[in-house]
Amino acid sequence: MYKAPVEEIAFTLKHVAGLSKAIDDGRLGDLSDDLVDAILTEAGRFASDEVAPLAEIGDKQGARMVDGKVVVPEGWDTLYRAWAEGGWNSLTASEDFGGQGLPHMLNVAALEMWNSGSMGFALGPTLTMGAVDAVTAHGSEELKAKYLPKMVSGEWTGTMNLTEPHAGSDLGVMKSRAERRDDGTYRIFGQKIFITWGEHEITENIIHLVLARLPDAPAGTRGISLFLVPKYLVNDDGSIGARNDLHCHSLEHKLGIHGSPTCTMIYGDGKYGDEAGAIGWLIGEENKGLACMFTMMNNARLAVGMQGVAICEAATQKAVQYAKDRTQGKAPGWIGSGMSPIIEHPDVARMLVTMKALTQGSRAICYVCAHATDMSHHADGDEARHWAERAALLTPIAKSFATDAGVDVASLGIQTHGGMGFIEETGAARYWRDSRIAPIYEGTNGIQAADLVTRKLPLSNGNHVRGYITELKQVVNAVRASNLEGFGETAARLDASLSDLEDATEWLLSQLASGNASAALAGATPYQRLFGLALTGVYLAKGALADEDHGRDNRLALCRFAAENLIAETAALKDRVVNGAASLEAARALFA
Amino acid sequence: MYKAPVEEIAFTLKHVAGLSKAIDDGRLGDLSDDLVDAILTEAGRFASDEVAPLAEIGDKQGARMVDGKVVVPEGWDTLYRAWAEGGWNSLTASEDFGGQGLPHMLNVAALEMWNSGSMGFALGPTLTMGAVDAVTAHGSEELKAKYLPKMVSGEWTGTMNLTEPHAGSDLGVMKSRAERRDDGTYRIFGQKIFITWGEHEITENIIHLVLARLPDAPAGTRGISLFLVPKYLVNDDGSIGARNDLHCHSLEHKLGIHGSPTCTMIYGDGKYGDEAGAIGWLIGEENKGLACMFTMMNNARLAVGMQGVAICEAATQKAVQYAKDRTQGKAPGWIGSGMSPIIEHPDVARMLVTMKALTQGSRAICYVCAHATDMSHHADGDEARHWAERAALLTPIAKSFATDAGVDVASLGIQTHGGMGFIEETGAARYWRDSRIAPIYEGTNGIQAADLVTRKLPLSNGNHVRGYITELKQVVNAVRASNLEGFGETAARLDASLSDLEDATEWLLSQLASGNASAALAGATPYQRLFGLALTGVYLAKGALADEDHGRDNRLALCRFAAENLIAETAALKDRVVNGAASLEAARALFA
Repeated sequence: MYKAPVEEIAFTLKHVAGLSKAIDDGRLGDLSDDLVDAILTEAGRFASDEVAPLAEIGDKQGARMVDGKVVVPEGWDTLYRAWAEGGWNSLTASEDFGGQGLPHMLNVAALEMWNSGSMGFALGPTLTMGAVDAVTAHGSEELKAKYLPKMVSGEWTGTMNLTEPHAGSDLGVMKSRAERRDDGTYRIFGQKIFITWGEHEITENIIHLVLARLPDAPAGTRGISLFLVPKYLVNDDGSIGARNDLHCHSLEHKLGIHGSPTCTMIYGDGKYGDEAGAIGWLIGEENKGLACMFTMMNNARLAVGMQGVAICEAATQKAVQYAKDRTQGKAPGWIGSGMSPIIEHPDVARMLVTMKALTQGSRAICYVCAHATDMSHHADGDEARHWAERAALLTPIAKSFATDAGVDVASLGIQTHGGMGFIEETGAARYWRDSRIAPIYEGTNGIQAADLVTRKLPLSNGNHVRGYITELKQVVNAVRASNLEGFGETAARLDASLSDLEDATEWLLSQLASGNASAALAGATPYQRLFGLALTGVYLAKGALADEDHGRDNRLALCRFAAENLIAETAALKDRVVNGAASLEAARALFA
Repeated sequence: MYKAPVEEIAFTLKHVAGLSKAIDDGRLGDLSDDLVDAILTEAGRFASDEVAPLAEIGDKQGARMVDGKVVVPEGWDTLYRAWAEGGWNSLTASEDFGGQGLPHMLNVAALEMWNSGSMGFALGPTLTMGAVDAVTAHGSEELKAKYLPKMVSGEWTGTMNLTEPHAGSDLGVMKSRAERRDDGTYRIFGQKIFITWGEHEITENIIHLVLARLPDAPAGTRGISLFLVPKYLVNDDGSIGARNDLHCHSLEHKLGIHGSPTCTMIYGDGKYGDEAGAIGWLIGEENKGLACMFTMMNNARLAVGMQGVAICEAATQKAVQYAKDRTQGKAPGWIGSGMSPIIEHPDVARMLVTMKALTQGSRAICYVCAHATDMSHHADGDEARHWAERAALLTPIAKSFATDAGVDVASLGIQTHGGMGFIEETGAARYWRDSRIAPIYEGTNGIQAADLVTRKLPLSNGNHVRGYITELKQVVNAVRASNLEGFGETAARLDASLSDLEDATEWLLSQLASGNASAALAGATPYQRLFGLALTGVYLAKGALADEDHGRDNRLALCRFAAENLIAETAALKDRVVNGAASLEAARALFA
């Protein structure tokens, strides 16, 4: 059973991501290292003891429609309420609406733990937090006052309604429509699909944020508006009013995250109310809905990245335990009587160390990304812009690298279990099934790569990414200067990977500069992975350098393994970026 | 819906694997290219029109226990009987027992198609064929006469009973036991798990091959005997007699291949018959059971490799179709009105071409392996030994590379479908779930790698693998000599990958020679993948060189993509083999 790695999480936050320095620099108000430890410890306890035990039943029963109502797995309603009452929904929310105003770093660390416990469960609150962010940033004072307190407390959950059958990655073609009413409200009509936690009976209300198009809106993405559309209308005294004209038509039958209801939502078909049309209130300005969504997209994408980290951690814990318990054959050099634990076999050890390295690398990248977001909120002017750019640059890497790692690590977890890994009761398969959605939603990893290459590399004319690579090189210099024997060939290997990163970056920038977007996009996915691998090596090294007190031997060993066994792949990835486009273009003939 | 790629399969068999040359050289009796085409066409029709349409219901309903009986999915019994009546069970079986005596090459091609249609369905016949091979090679004349005709025709199915809860990869510790009886029969007692198609009502009898230990047997793998244990005893006139004392205790709840009943079998608990003990007949000699199993292990492993190829092909077809149909966004350079098909986006194209290259590479490696097996049966003396060594060397690579490719390609298939890929009704997820068992059973891919490195590389003192690499280099020379522009940098890239292969091979041989098995085993999995990637490049090139008549442009393009985008990874893999062991060893401290 999953046990939250609180110490590892705290260490990574403080010493790799930079939380302790931010606290020491007075950026984070009253927050102290001790308070951080207390919060993480309590979150870890809740995730391990309360959430994780309900993951299996969540997978087995799944969310289902019974007599037109969405029923969640046994125990999930109680679990959710205990979770909300623990204050976990409100960590980063504004203190004006009952939130705790804590840094994102803490929230992503907590998100990691909820998702390790049960990804399907953690998904609901993740969506609520996104809705809170959107209303906080763009809602009118009236909307905020009416909705935020109960959304922040978790008494009401929130959803994001973007996708339609013909509008997924490309939202510009969506058909849902909104009509203005004289009283300043709107009526919303349309069908939305893949709506996470779109309907359930856990809370007394659900606040939907819905993208739709006004009759006179410009075509494409510049004609989309964002609306707040509650399941039940809310009276002025805050009490629950009439049912709004929206409902869940059906649930999807999914590969994983079975406990999370994925709903097809129908707005405005006249099922409820006197007049067809779900009543909605505009968030932000008309036709600026997509921009409103994008302001919180970084957080949402990082939250999905945390699901990758979470699966990595949980799957690794499970596989290590199995490999220690299961005996089979005799490993070379095994001197015990009888069979050796399979962890003694070099090939099994290779799988497990690879899993650990990808877990810790993904975690570090995601926490570093959250740190950049926090710093952008706690700095001004150029410094704020610097950190905002850093968060923008890191978000697609964090999302994609961690979610790809989630799938790969969960797959190695199954493999470690041998035949038992294929049996559902073992639980290893569940991690793998759950993991598979994360590279897809909140922008597929291919879209993350396109975003990274075409929008993020050009920030500050390419000088932001260049400066970042320079910073990364300083870590390598510190590795070399440390003279720690346990690093092995780490310095040379990191140098090589950062050279690959630099070369690939410059090549891509030059393609973009000369208007050759197609060639740049052809290499976007290999580039994104190259970046993530290089960061994995650097941040594992940073952790080893920082850990003077305890456990340094383990950090050195993990870093060295990553350096000498995993990151040499950057050479081939760079080659794909720089030399791969022509043959990809030629191969299009295959599909003619 | 899957459509068997008969032309591609035939081309690969004839011109890459060497079927046409073997026919021309008179090695394969009356077989002609035309007969090959006729057989493949009919198999393709059956797989596409009869098998594939029942795959989804097989997954949804699964095999299940109803009132103590194992029930297979709707339509599967009729499908099986039609398949057997079509003669598909008997392609390679001996003509002495009603078989068609055709080469293995044809059977693996047919296996590919059955498995693309439905992996869970195709698995049953695969086990029967393995049992036929074992009885043919090691059974007494009496056993052969009594059982083989109906097993060859498919009137009865067969199973292989190896695994026990504590004996998976290490069969030496199995506990199932056999007692001698005065009449020359044996009584079998014990529990076996993961028994594929261990029980069903499709056929009137099931012939179990069961490994068990005699009371006076030596410990370990040298004390295991193989027994034929029918579900129903067979009277001397061939009619069905009494129920034997064995039964299916339960079915596993699996991640994939739901239609295939995976049984826990109980032998000899007294449920049936007057006296406890399932009646069995010895196959081969006492205590030589494992050797009997190993003689057919190559075929069984290659059959699993074909499942990998099969999933690759089916998943790729589905993804290509979706990517042509689904429109979203505007790809760079798209001049059509509205959104472009997603296949136009470079990142999607990269996924699809990668899928195609891995499919065709895996297929070629597996067919080349089957060709080696056939040649070993149709040659004498040194030549036979040469081909037997080639088959032995290629088997672990074919099994592991193709099954890993199956998982990777099915995963890319899901990714291509975006959110729809996560919805079970789409079908892309089924391929991925089914694919995941193939890297595990018939020896995990880690065990394949250990076998490759410690048993196969040393064949003929390392000279077999050296000679093979020399042959591969001749293909590269032919690429260079061809001056075909479409090859791009293929020759240089293939040269580099074969150098990596050569260096890694010599390093491993030197470690084995100096008794450093642990270091060699630490690099076994990266080496196995390196070998598979290098072969992919070479065999795609061989196909392009051979295809003078039609489609050469496509073959050149696919080969060039593999050479310039995929196989550069061999450098990092070689590095892992040669330099990776020390840091892996150091990282064991993580689990102390």
